[in-house]
Amino acid sequence: MLTDWNKIDKFAKEWLQEARSKIIASFESTLTITTKSDANDLVTNMDEEIENFFVTNIRNQFPSHEILGEESIGHEIEQLDGVVWIIDPIDGTMNFVHQKRNFFISIGIYEDGVGQLGYLYDVVHNELYYGKKGEGVHCNEVKIPPIKDVPIHEAIVGISATWLIENKDTNKGEALIELVKDVRGTRSYGSAALEFSYVATGRLDAYISMRLAPWDFAGGKIIIEELGGIVTDLDGKALNLLEKSPVLVTSSGLHEQIFKSYIKK
Amino acid sequence: MLTDWNKIDKFAKEWLQEARSKIIASFESTLTITTKSDANDLVTNMDEEIENFFVTNIRNQFPSHEILGEESIGHEIEQLDGVVWIIDPIDGTMNFVHQKRNFFISIGIYEDGVGQLGYLYDVVHNELYYGKKGEGVHCNEVKIPPIKDVPIHEAIVGISATWLIENKDTNKGEALIELVKDVRGTRSYGSAALEFSYVATGRLDAYISMRLAPWDFAGGKIIIEELGGIVTDLDGKALNLLEKSPVLVTSSGLHEQIFKSYIKK
Repeated sequence: MLTDWNKIDKFAKEWLQEARSKIIASFESTLTITTKSDANDLVTNMDEEIENFFVTNIRNQFPSHEILGEESIGHEIEQLDGVVWIIDPIDGTMNFVHQKRNFFISIGIYEDGVGQLGYLYDVVHNELYYGKKGEGVHCNEVKIPPIKDVPIHEAIVGISATWLIENKDTNKGEALIELVKDVRGTRSYGSAALEFSYVATGRLDAYISMRLAPWDFAGGKIIIEELGGIVTDLDGKALNLLEKSPVLVTSSGLHEQIFKSYIKK
Repeated sequence: MLTDWNKIDKFAKEWLQEARSKIIASFESTLTITTKSDANDLVTNMDEEIENFFVTNIRNQFPSHEILGEESIGHEIEQLDGVVWIIDPIDGTMNFVHQKRNFFISIGIYEDGVGQLGYLYDVVHNELYYGKKGEGVHCNEVKIPPIKDVPIHEAIVGISATWLIENKDTNKGEALIELVKDVRGTRSYGSAALEFSYVATGRLDAYISMRLAPWDFAGGKIIIEELGGIVTDLDGKALNLLEKSPVLVTSSGLHEQIFKSYIKK
């Protein structure tokens, strides 16, 4: 039986709207904050509530679908057969807690490992970026054009200062420092989904992180690839949707320039 | 004769609204871009048009006032006697060009060197942060509470990656790297006015730049100080409103911690 992607898309968008309402309402009440693996990895009760909301709805509506989520409310999955929702209920939790803006809901829906539907939702500004395989990407009602190439010296790159001063996660530190010296500017926003959406719209020309989880990149990857951009690890290899990984997001031309002139694979 | 600050405030806000309309309208038309001292210092025709708009209005309405602006349309000034408007018509020009968001209009109005009125205007999101000496700070109609202290390890700091990998502008590079390793996170937005507004509202706990011009910090300084925060250079000295300078913006408690444990003046 063919998967009904229009039906899945319709429900996903409905649930995103409902989730937004819950989050906006939560700004009125006090948040409970706990920490996960370290102090920088904040979890709020809202992360869990929103993931739980999606998991409950998906299980009711699409009982055969699998779910991989940041809060691990869906059971652990070890393979990508069938339809899999990969969900970050609040991408940029630190921004959510400290800024009450600049956080996203991120969802990627895959079938047998192939990206079919991607959603990056800027909750506060009510901007939903969504892509459907073969049908392009929209922000709300506006179609987004393909990602443009720019030369290195005109590029604005999203990269956290952390990756330039600590090298425990990479042997690419020197290459990244040389790249940062040559580009027009760097930015850092603290939300992978936001930075994927910025590359999608040309507000950034590249985004580099040394450590993202599948729920950080699953939605963005579908959107970037639908716009002709490239998402790989820092060895130029395809990402594994079940593992954490370094990630480089950019246009195809800039991807080639960065590998040729800086990372030298 | 006493200066009528209510009248100045009323006109400043009117002109900010008009300037916003001009900028939003310009998104429909094509921008001409030239460069100033280097390729990173973009100038658009819109910077000049907006500064010219303020200069013309100020000269008509307040002929005795002096003007110091990024585009140098006002004549050069060498002292701060009387009433002086210090204006950045588009703070974050690179964001304006590449992102069409995340840029501000920034205005500080001083009398005999003392800050009286400060405006930081997020044009796209239509959020006007304004402070009046002795009367507090508002964002649109909402009063902003005083800036809170946080411990270093809970702080989110606005700092460009540039300052961590190039030391030509500072002998503070090592101290900044140690600070960045200890804080909860860093961000970089590419607009000083945006980062001042984020410290004002607790979205950032500190902002550090190694090189800002008077028009980058004049408006923000008034707002931060009105909220009990501190704005100094990286030796802890007061800023000179006629010179470029390194700048540290933060709460009073965090200011003390940063100097004591990192910069060690």
